[in-house]
Amino acid sequence: MQLIADVAHHEVEQLMLAAAEAGAAVDAVGIAAVRYHLAEGGQRVRSRLALHAGASLGLESADAVRLAATVELLHNASLVHDDLQDQESVRRGRPSVWAAFGKDVALCVGDLLLSSAYGALSGFSRPALLPELLRCVHQRTAHVIRGQCAELAGRDRPVTSLAEYEQIVAGKSSALLSLPVELAFIAAGEAAWGPRIWEAARSFGVGYQMVDDLDDVGADAENHTLNAVLLLETLCPADDARSLVRRQARAHLETASVLALTLPAGSGSLLAEYSSRLVLRLQRD
Amino acid sequence: MQLIADVAHHEVEQLMLAAAEAGAAVDAVGIAAVRYHLAEGGQRVRSRLALHAGASLGLESADAVRLAATVELLHNASLVHDDLQDQESVRRGRPSVWAAFGKDVALCVGDLLLSSAYGALSGFSRPALLPELLRCVHQRTAHVIRGQCAELAGRDRPVTSLAEYEQIVAGKSSALLSLPVELAFIAAGEAAWGPRIWEAARSFGVGYQMVDDLDDVGADAENHTLNAVLLLETLCPADDARSLVRRQARAHLETASVLALTLPAGSGSLLAEYSSRLVLRLQRD
Repeated sequence: MQLIADVAHHEVEQLMLAAAEAGAAVDAVGIAAVRYHLAEGGQRVRSRLALHAGASLGLESADAVRLAATVELLHNASLVHDDLQDQESVRRGRPSVWAAFGKDVALCVGDLLLSSAYGALSGFSRPALLPELLRCVHQRTAHVIRGQCAELAGRDRPVTSLAEYEQIVAGKSSALLSLPVELAFIAAGEAAWGPRIWEAARSFGVGYQMVDDLDDVGADAENHTLNAVLLLETLCPADDARSLVRRQARAHLETASVLALTLPAGSGSLLAEYSSRLVLRLQRD
Repeated sequence: MQLIADVAHHEVEQLMLAAAEAGAAVDAVGIAAVRYHLAEGGQRVRSRLALHAGASLGLESADAVRLAATVELLHNASLVHDDLQDQESVRRGRPSVWAAFGKDVALCVGDLLLSSAYGALSGFSRPALLPELLRCVHQRTAHVIRGQCAELAGRDRPVTSLAEYEQIVAGKSSALLSLPVELAFIAAGEAAWGPRIWEAARSFGVGYQMVDDLDDVGADAENHTLNAVLLLETLCPADDARSLVRRQARAHLETASVLALTLPAGSGSLLAEYSSRLVLRLQRD
């Protein structure tokens, strides 16, 4: 099982590069920047979620790999464009794409990765399911983009309610955490589980972001970045704010874990595991 | 025929908006900017090429409309991002998206239009053809992005050969002029005509760009923008440069016209007509 997974992870990386290079003739610049960005892969959480759900549901390995590559390409497109917009000069311990290659190239690289996500999907083995897969990919992608747009708009007009915070985070984080599992279910002919997957992933994304916020209060205060602790500090004493965010985070992560474990054939068990790990971390801190 | 076409043009506009709004809940910002950009539609040349080729080849009208919307969404995504990169503050007589809504929103709007192109395609009536349609859309999109990347890289390192100029222009202009006709042929089960369509569209795109260059020598010199006349002026006297570009443009446009007219069922006649109009303009000037 572990060995199969390692092979699959390697195949996902290969497919991501192949999709980005589609029909490439010359232009060393763009492709070099894509290779640079993808070389430091991060944890590939979304790829793992797709491969795990795909294996649980009995998808052909090549199809699960395609779904995983699709979601990772979308995620990386959003990272490259977000870093550009946020002027974040470091990504995964190295200069981010815009810092290394310039802003113009970074914009092109994000576009190329975004289109490549759809390119990777084109080889899916059952074309009859492509319309629904495509619709789902576009819907979640639009969700991510609108989330980013709302967050940027929030720079000028501070976010003052937890409901609005959660809505932004649902786009920013949850959408692409839900997508790998949703796609695996569509590919298995089980699209009806969509709402439950979304609810689990939405809760996980919000809980995950809150844990992140607890770690980053200082930096986020400096950069005027959206942060649940800072938001609550405008409404109650700072100690209470931290404590409330911890409780909220825990509730969201437990919700994610419980819901994910009700998905069939153990297909949500990896999402549940990620949630439980974060709960443990909250208890340790 | 004209009446049917008018209805179809309206349907293309509707579908473009619907795809961009997919699943939209709140975020007025992004959607408002999309509406703003799409409201001044330009000539919709690529949409017309898709609808014309589709009608010639007997496609269902709804499918031709989907192909048209896909290509126009891609084209408009590239306009929004190009304006941002080129700091072009006017588009179609009004402030461009970044000038009206800010750079962050413009980046998001381009991303949203790009993903929406694939979203529009998801409703195509024959899923069995979706893999090939998707591959073709991604390949041409990657072509456009690489062309833009190469042009931007050329700012620092001047382009000194016509071959390199044509390569850049093929990505920048020809790719999305070829795509509407290529998609119509794939949708009609006639993908084998692809190389001929590409050659006609490539020639048209290069000829079109050269006509544009002849008009814009002054502005392009000021902005250090790629221009065939300026390129040749580094190799021969200015008068000769203009004359050579006119002759090159004419040869390309005539090639486009002749090749387009060999496509079956009159499917290339609109591309041929556009080419001939530009030749007439060259003769008048």
